[in-house]
Formats: sequence, structure tokens, C-alpha cells
Amino acid sequence: MSVALPDKIDSDNTDLKQYMAQVGQQARRAADELAIAEPARKNAALSKIAEVIDAQRAIIASENFKDMRNGERDGLDKAMLDRLLLTEARIDAMIEGLQQVATLADPVGEISEMAYRPSGIQVGKMRVPLGVIGIIYESRPNVTIDAAALCLKSGNASILRGGKEAIHSNQAIYRCIEQGLVQAGLSQHSVQVINTIDRDAVGLMLNMRESIDVIIPRGGKSLIERVAAEASIPVIKHLDGLCHVYIDDRADQSKAVAIALNAKTRRYGVCNAMETLLVANAVAESVLAELVPALIDQGVELRGCSRCCQLHPKQISPASDEDWETEYLAPILSIRIVDDMDQAIEHINQRGSHHTDAIVTEDYSRAHQFLRRVDSSSVMVNASTAFADGFEYGLGAEIGISTDKLHARGPVGLKGLTSQKYIVLGDGHTRS
Amino acid sequence: MSVALPDKIDSDNTDLKQYMAQVGQQARRAADELAIAEPARKNAALSKIAEVIDAQRAIIASENFKDMRNGERDGLDKAMLDRLLLTEARIDAMIEGLQQVATLADPVGEISEMAYRPSGIQVGKMRVPLGVIGIIYESRPNVTIDAAALCLKSGNASILRGGKEAIHSNQAIYRCIEQGLVQAGLSQHSVQVINTIDRDAVGLMLNMRESIDVIIPRGGKSLIERVAAEASIPVIKHLDGLCHVYIDDRADQSKAVAIALNAKTRRYGVCNAMETLLVANAVAESVLAELVPALIDQGVELRGCSRCCQLHPKQISPASDEDWETEYLAPILSIRIVDDMDQAIEHINQRGSHHTDAIVTEDYSRAHQFLRRVDSSSVMVNASTAFADGFEYGLGAEIGISTDKLHARGPVGLKGLTSQKYIVLGDGHTRS
Repeated sequence: MSVALPDKIDSDNTDLKQYMAQVGQQARRAADELAIAEPARKNAALSKIAEVIDAQRAIIASENFKDMRNGERDGLDKAMLDRLLLTEARIDAMIEGLQQVATLADPVGEISEMAYRPSGIQVGKMRVPLGVIGIIYESRPNVTIDAAALCLKSGNASILRGGKEAIHSNQAIYRCIEQGLVQAGLSQHSVQVINTIDRDAVGLMLNMRESIDVIIPRGGKSLIERVAAEASIPVIKHLDGLCHVYIDDRADQSKAVAIALNAKTRRYGVCNAMETLLVANAVAESVLAELVPALIDQGVELRGCSRCCQLHPKQISPASDEDWETEYLAPILSIRIVDDMDQAIEHINQRGSHHTDAIVTEDYSRAHQFLRRVDSSSVMVNASTAFADGFEYGLGAEIGISTDKLHARGPVGLKGLTSQKYIVLGDGHTRS
Repeated sequence: MSVALPDKIDSDNTDLKQYMAQVGQQARRAADELAIAEPARKNAALSKIAEVIDAQRAIIASENFKDMRNGERDGLDKAMLDRLLLTEARIDAMIEGLQQVATLADPVGEISEMAYRPSGIQVGKMRVPLGVIGIIYESRPNVTIDAAALCLKSGNASILRGGKEAIHSNQAIYRCIEQGLVQAGLSQHSVQVINTIDRDAVGLMLNMRESIDVIIPRGGKSLIERVAAEASIPVIKHLDGLCHVYIDDRADQSKAVAIALNAKTRRYGVCNAMETLLVANAVAESVLAELVPALIDQGVELRGCSRCCQLHPKQISPASDEDWETEYLAPILSIRIVDDMDQAIEHINQRGSHHTDAIVTEDYSRAHQFLRRVDSSSVMVNASTAFADGFEYGLGAEIGISTDKLHARGPVGLKGLTSQKYIVLGDGHTRS
């Protein structure tokens, strides 16, 4: 079964351009249908896709094996091969994910804020899909299902472009999606997975203004930077998760230690992990005396400001200026002792990535100030940054976390994939 | 008093670049202050600015006179000169506008959707300013006040770039704004008006990603197209207002006639005026028999489909294909007789501009269908398109109308100039 267009067919890539234009037109037509599809039909499609995946586990596994073999041949590193692998458990998770999205409330058509105006008209808002969403991602083939499910549920057509190393897995999954869509009576173009490994397909996608309404990149920083730089379509993205915990001098020390440990060591490679700890000078000695051995115990490498190094010369090595702006995604933590909350907020707003930052304090006014003044997509009081997550926030599911300010900010769930239009009800009303 | 940098100072415009960079840095610093300014201080600034404008009417008028004289010398057309003119009544309106914005509820800091999650944390949203807003506009100097007031109230710093023909008026108004800001104890850079007529300033503004968060163009289509094409910063815009009224065969004819007349003839040069009327075939003869003479009476030129022309050969001339995609902004109306609502919706979604479209019908299901299926920023039932307006919708004031889907859609008021961040409250909570 042919799964990919040949790599670079002709010099000016006419075939690729035609193919992408066709994908775009098909998506636009499917989006018109999907925008007004009944919730029951969308949910049926999600369930059918889950059934087909369950029935085709063997095919998916064998296509995934091809990708794994090619990946090993091409010398992909161990972490990348791990992300590429579709185990039985991961296929189970894909199926559960589909079933779970089917149970979520449908955001489309929701009417809110309906109120009478002095003129006599009623004005409110109706939630509507964005249209066509382009998703560009890397090696994890399960993103194909996650992204397709959230776009479908929110009434959007989607165009998915996965990594070239996962092309066989993604195409196998796509065939399941197509069957599920058709079985539920929806257009097979409601979800489309680009079937070429030609890198130029990404460049074309980023500029299909007529047929794509928003682009969501999911992957490493270099992918996201490329997408942000080249796209002429709006992008929902986050670049870094350089999260801070600030331990105030009015913190409850046991809460502070628990939160800092959890924020750093729960998982290292995630965007909501703490990368820099800030501690108020007045409590630094006491807090660090408890926290430093605990972190060292967990195998965390510590880099600190000069005062930190004085306190724990054997455990903490000097941090360079670069450390304060580095998302380690690893068992490394930078620690800075600050004069007070003002200096902490300044550090966070200047050095951070506007992702997620927390204060630990028992002081009401400082908690209030911190919430107001820290310019991040999630700001927390006495809670671990590890909570920054669509499921934990009750969004049901998450397509990504946005650190931009326009449209969606923070974890982006189904509502983040929709817009609102105004609706006006009158009874023959005219404006004077 | 010097009001403008010289036009094109040096070949590579180093001075202009330095000037713009400085404006950007000043705006960013002012935005940090303004984001956490007390509502009372922002309102005091709005009141002070109103007082200073009232006290300096003579100076504003004499600076405006310079612009008018230059405009006449440069051969500006009558409509442009009218937009440029600051009469006493228009200065009154500026003062009233400022006072009215001061009375609006402050959107910043509003907390909503705060709820406990199963983990025990409380999650909600806090409304925050966008940061720095760039406004690019044309000849109307009163936009300087409107835009400054809305940005200030919503906690955003603003960089305003008016038309070169209004430079003296805008600078005179700006000096009033500066005085008011300083009197209220806010940074004078909370609002900045670019003081050069060099067109390159616009190009620079559109790419100041570090210091401007969103650009809002206000003016004619060519300005907005330029801004959309050149900006690397998100843009809130609408290009066209090609609004439709569809008169269904289950319409109440008296409501239909009143709404169509109001939507077309209330004001011709506005974006919410009806440009195309669609009438269901079954009632076309009866509706047009009443409506055509009424429109002709008001001096409206009628262009129609072949069936329209058959019904009223003397009053309606044949419409070209272009007519269905033209925003006349003039006493001209195109009329098409359609088979049914489906054909009307297809026409609106394909030929319209996604601004504002209305159905007149007494049929419940059709009203419901029309609201769902028409893909416009405002969709109305039995009401005139003339209601599409921030004041009529209860937004208090309006900086523009967005026909895009991301972030803000429809009339954009104070909330449209803000974003929401997540806030999380715990009591030492860690994630398992």
C-alpha cells in the first residue's frame, strides 16, 4: 500500500503544490459540514474510530515496526525512538482518549450572555468552530489521534502533518480515522493526514491562508520557532516552559518544601516543571537546609547564585547568567536568593517564559499582588506548577499550552479551538 | 512649537529607527505600570485629559486649522476634509467620550469561573491587559482620543499613528493627553502619538514584535490590507462590511420592509449598512412591490438579478457579478431573488464578508438554522443590521469590529483589548 508521495517529485514541486491545494479545499468543504454536524454524529465518529483502531491493532503495530526499523537504521536517538514506539498500552491510551473526548460536553452552539438591550433587541454570543486547524507535530504518532479527536469534537476540520519518521504509523492510524468518519456519515476529509515526507509541505501549510484558519505546532523549540517565523496564518503556541517557584519569607516551610520538590522532581521533561527556584533571603538558610539534601537525594544537580553557593558550597555550583534563562527539561535546578517578592516578580517577568509561576506564602496581600503582577499564562499560590495542565484544570483534554496573549492563553482545550459570534434577536426592530 | 521629525532624515532612516525603538521601550515600561494601576487612577487620568482638552479648545482648533489649510492646499477631497475638521461639537464629543469611558466598569483583574477541582486546587481566570496596542488610523483626529481612552481604561499602553494630514491636530490632542496622564500620576508614555509623517514609521511599527502586542488598523480598505499584509504582529481588523438581509417566505412583510429600509437607508457610509438584499421567490413579488418604491423614494439606486429586473424593469437595472461582492458604502443596493433559505445562506457565506447578516422570518426552525449556519461575526433574526455596534451591544464603547475568528469577533470593546490568564489557589497542594 503506497503511503507517501515520492520525496521531491519535480524541481518546482508542482505536484506537491497541487496536492496541498486539494487538501486545503477538501478541508474547507468538510469544515462547513462539520460546523453544523449534530453532536451525536461527531461522537459516533469518535467511537467508530476507536473501534476501528481496536480492530486494526496488528496493522498499526506492523506499520509502526517499519518506522522503528527505519528510525534505527537512520540513527535516531533513544528518546526519539521511544516517542515513536506504539506499544499495546499506548494504543489502549489512544482508544481511551477517543472515548473520553466523546463524553465531553460539545462546545459548539453554546449560547451565553444573552441579554436585552435598551433598544429592545436581545444580544448574546454563540460558540462556533474556528474552521480548519493545521497541526504540525513531530515523532509521537499518538498525537495524530489526540489532535484529530479534539478538532473533530470542536467542529473543526483538521490537516495533520506528523514527523517523517512516523509516516507509516500515522498513515495506518489515518486509515482508521477515515473509516470511522465514513461509518458515522461524516466527510472523510474532516481529518486529513498529509501523506508526504517532503519538508516543503510544512512551508506550504504555513501559508495556506485561504484554507487554514489557525496553526498549532506541537514539538520541540526549533519546530515551533520555525512555524512562528514562517506562518502567515495565526499560530497557537508556546515556546518555553521556564517555570518558577518563589518561596516567600512568610511561607509555611513544609508546604514550600513539598511544592518545590513536586514541581521539580515529579517529571523532568515536561513544560510545567520548575526550572528556577527563588527563595526570600530571610528564610533562605532554613528552607535550603531542608530542601537541598532532599533535591540531591533525588539526583537533582543544583546551580545557584553566589549566596546559595556560600550556604551549600559542596552541593550547589555557581550558576551562569544563561542558567536563569534555560529550560533544562532535566534533573537540574537553578536557585536564586532574592531580597523580597518584588525582586522575585521582576526576575520572573524578565527571565521567565510567561508559562507557569507560583508563590508559596501565607500572606494575603502578597498572594494577591503576585497573582496580579506576574505576567504568565498560569499564576499559582501555594500549589505546584505541575498542576498546569488541561486535565487538571478541568478542560477535559488539552491540545497544547499557549503562552501568547491573544485568543487562547494557558492550557488550550475544546473551547480554545472555538470562537464566538454575536447573535441578535429582534421582533422587527430597527435602529433610530 | 515643533510637532514633527523632518520627513526622511537620512538615507537608511537611522534616526527614525532609533526614535521608534525608543517609543517601543517607553511603551513597554508604561504597560508594566498600567497593568497594575488602580482603576481610580486610570479614571482620574481620563477625567484630567477631558479637562485639559476643554481648557485648550482654542489651541486644538488653531492646530486643526493648520491641517485644514494644508489639506486644502494639497487638494484633499471634500469627504476627507470633513473627516479632518474638528468642530466645537466634535471636541465636545471627545470630552463626553472620555467621561463616558471613565464610567465603564474596569475589565482588568476580573476573576471568573473559579471552581474547585478534584485535586483540591481552585482554578479560575483573571482578566489582564494585552500589553502594548498599536493603532494605525487615517484622517479623523478624534480617533486619537477614542483609541487612547479605550486602551488606557483596559490597562494597555498605546502607540498611535494617525494620518499625516492630521499631524498638527493629533499632536495638539496628544499634548492634552500627556498633561492629563501626568496630572493623574501615570507615566506620560502610557499613550504615545508618533510625531513624524514619515510613512516608514508604519512599516517599522508593524514589525515591533518585542514592544507591540497587537495592531489595530482603523480606516479604509487599502490601509487595512497593507497592515494585514505587512504586520508580523497579530492584527485585529475587519476589511469589508458587505451585510445582507434575507427576507424569508415566512417573513412578516411589515417587519421585513421596515428592517430592509432601515438597514439600507439609516446611514450609507457605515460598515453595518445592508449592501445586498435577498428575497425568497415565493414572496418576492409582494415584498418588492412595497419595498422598491420606498427605496426609490429615498434615492437608492437598485441593481438586481434577472427576475428582479423582470418585476421592476424601470426601477431595477441588471446587477453584474461584481455587484454581489461590492461594499457600496453609498445609496446603491443589489437585490437577488433566491429559491429558499438554503440558497440565501450559501450566497451570504460565499459572497459576504462575514460581518453582519440578518434573516426576517416568523419560522422558528429557520431562525434557528440561520443563526447556526451563517458564518458571520453578527447574525440577526428580525432586526436591522444597523444594530451591529459596540454601543448597541452594550460594550460601552468600541474600538472596531473584527471579522476574524481568533481572539475577538464582532464589535471589540474593552474586553476585546484584554486577555485572561489562569489563576490557581492551593494550600500546599502537590500533584500526584
